[in-house]
Amino acid sequence: MRQARTKREIRSIVEPWRRQGLKIGFVPTMGYFHEGHLALMKRAAELADRVVVSIFVNPTQFGPNEDLDRYPRALERDLELAEVSGVDLVFLPEARELYPPGFQTWVTVEDLSRGLCGASRPGHFRGVATVVAKLFNIVQPDLAVFGEKDYQQLQVIKRMVIDLDFPVEIVAHPTVREPDGLAMSSRNSYLTASQRKSALCLKEALDQAQALVSRGVTNADEIEAAMKRTIAAYPESRIDYIFIGDPETLEPKDSVSGPVFVALAVFVGDTRLIDNRVISSPEDRAGR
Amino acid sequence: MRQARTKREIRSIVEPWRRQGLKIGFVPTMGYFHEGHLALMKRAAELADRVVVSIFVNPTQFGPNEDLDRYPRALERDLELAEVSGVDLVFLPEARELYPPGFQTWVTVEDLSRGLCGASRPGHFRGVATVVAKLFNIVQPDLAVFGEKDYQQLQVIKRMVIDLDFPVEIVAHPTVREPDGLAMSSRNSYLTASQRKSALCLKEALDQAQALVSRGVTNADEIEAAMKRTIAAYPESRIDYIFIGDPETLEPKDSVSGPVFVALAVFVGDTRLIDNRVISSPEDRAGR
Repeated sequence: MRQARTKREIRSIVEPWRRQGLKIGFVPTMGYFHEGHLALMKRAAELADRVVVSIFVNPTQFGPNEDLDRYPRALERDLELAEVSGVDLVFLPEARELYPPGFQTWVTVEDLSRGLCGASRPGHFRGVATVVAKLFNIVQPDLAVFGEKDYQQLQVIKRMVIDLDFPVEIVAHPTVREPDGLAMSSRNSYLTASQRKSALCLKEALDQAQALVSRGVTNADEIEAAMKRTIAAYPESRIDYIFIGDPETLEPKDSVSGPVFVALAVFVGDTRLIDNRVISSPEDRAGR
Repeated sequence: MRQARTKREIRSIVEPWRRQGLKIGFVPTMGYFHEGHLALMKRAAELADRVVVSIFVNPTQFGPNEDLDRYPRALERDLELAEVSGVDLVFLPEARELYPPGFQTWVTVEDLSRGLCGASRPGHFRGVATVVAKLFNIVQPDLAVFGEKDYQQLQVIKRMVIDLDFPVEIVAHPTVREPDGLAMSSRNSYLTASQRKSALCLKEALDQAQALVSRGVTNADEIEAAMKRTIAAYPESRIDYIFIGDPETLEPKDSVSGPVFVALAVFVGDTRLIDNRVISSPEDRAGR
């Protein structure tokens, strides 16, 4: 497994692969790998001839009061895990390599960035779309794998690729979970033992929503109220948002019909966790 | 010379060129070719093995009260001129090919887009940067040639390429002029015979600025006032802006030192014309 710290190095390594007609898979990450990241790398290795992973805690996707400075890092461990997951090349840029003096160009995916995490984290998806556009231009992959855990991010990137005509196939990978159902996240490392138990409230609330939809409940307010009650039962939990709406446009829905996208962000202590699920309604299943 | 109307066709033609290791040059245009366009194509043909030209009157770079609907078109003539100028492939997309339903992603080059034509034409450079990003991703050229006539556009594109890491070399080509000094522009076709005479005021004002700088005048207000007097002497002329500032950052300067960028936009009748010049000041030349 090779490592590169500059754009020039990446291009000098990737260019010969491209000339040989090798298919290049890419997984952009912020490091501190868990099984979710490794699953994306393994998927890329299945689909492509060479796998490139970037590790970059991108400052432009963090708000001024967010956890940029304390975001967890474990580079040596990450490199070992990437190697055994079939990665061929790791890109480890410094911030100044990606954001040179005078930097002033931004990629904005307007409607999809507005609600959900975009409302709680202004500028977050502008930072995500911009750095992913940059990384696509640096690595020039044939495909890139993103996790469904960050579902809104996945939709933003898919839309950016369509709208700006990036010649990159976007592959979605299901959320990888701990045995008890907690979605894997680097931010889970912030949790105390008792908070770790409370963190299950996200998965429980999604189970609750699914059960209600299965029973034929269509009123979004009713589903949201039940989810709120579920979450409130867990200590140290504070809801940031609950969203019920369209899985593609991310527009909210008052009434559930067809597949419905349910997402939520919950602070557990000071740690903000997210999770989501696309739920088929009974009529939706009947119609197939 | 081949023609393509879809992204898919362009990629199917360009991909084999790339696999053969051929260097691809690109000239994005809005058609209605004059010698200025043809000079860009010829330059691309000198620098690259294959030349791609796009003809697309991009709706997103026109404001609601601008001349999108009456922008001049002459496709058959354009195709003949492109062929004799060494072009291998012409891309002729419809607007719906580049802006599909749900389109919502924009590329914004913030500081450089703010002043000059950006102030007179809100959203113009967002439309330019976005469509050029798209065309770069569709054509995937090694180099692209832009005219210095649209100097702010050139700086916006150069900055976008640096900031988003597009693997494309930007080549600047000097403004091509009519024998009397009028900068060539498709919009010159809007001018009546008497307006055509008044259109010389732009070039005359730039000559005036250059003469003053050569004589050691450093006060930008003094230069601007002289340019205004020059332009006012021409019938049907109305100044949109006069800019005196830095050639790279496009920040205005009160005092001329080092190379200075002078640009202006003038309405002649209803037609908005632009021109510009980078002028070395005497101390700048002495310092070399």
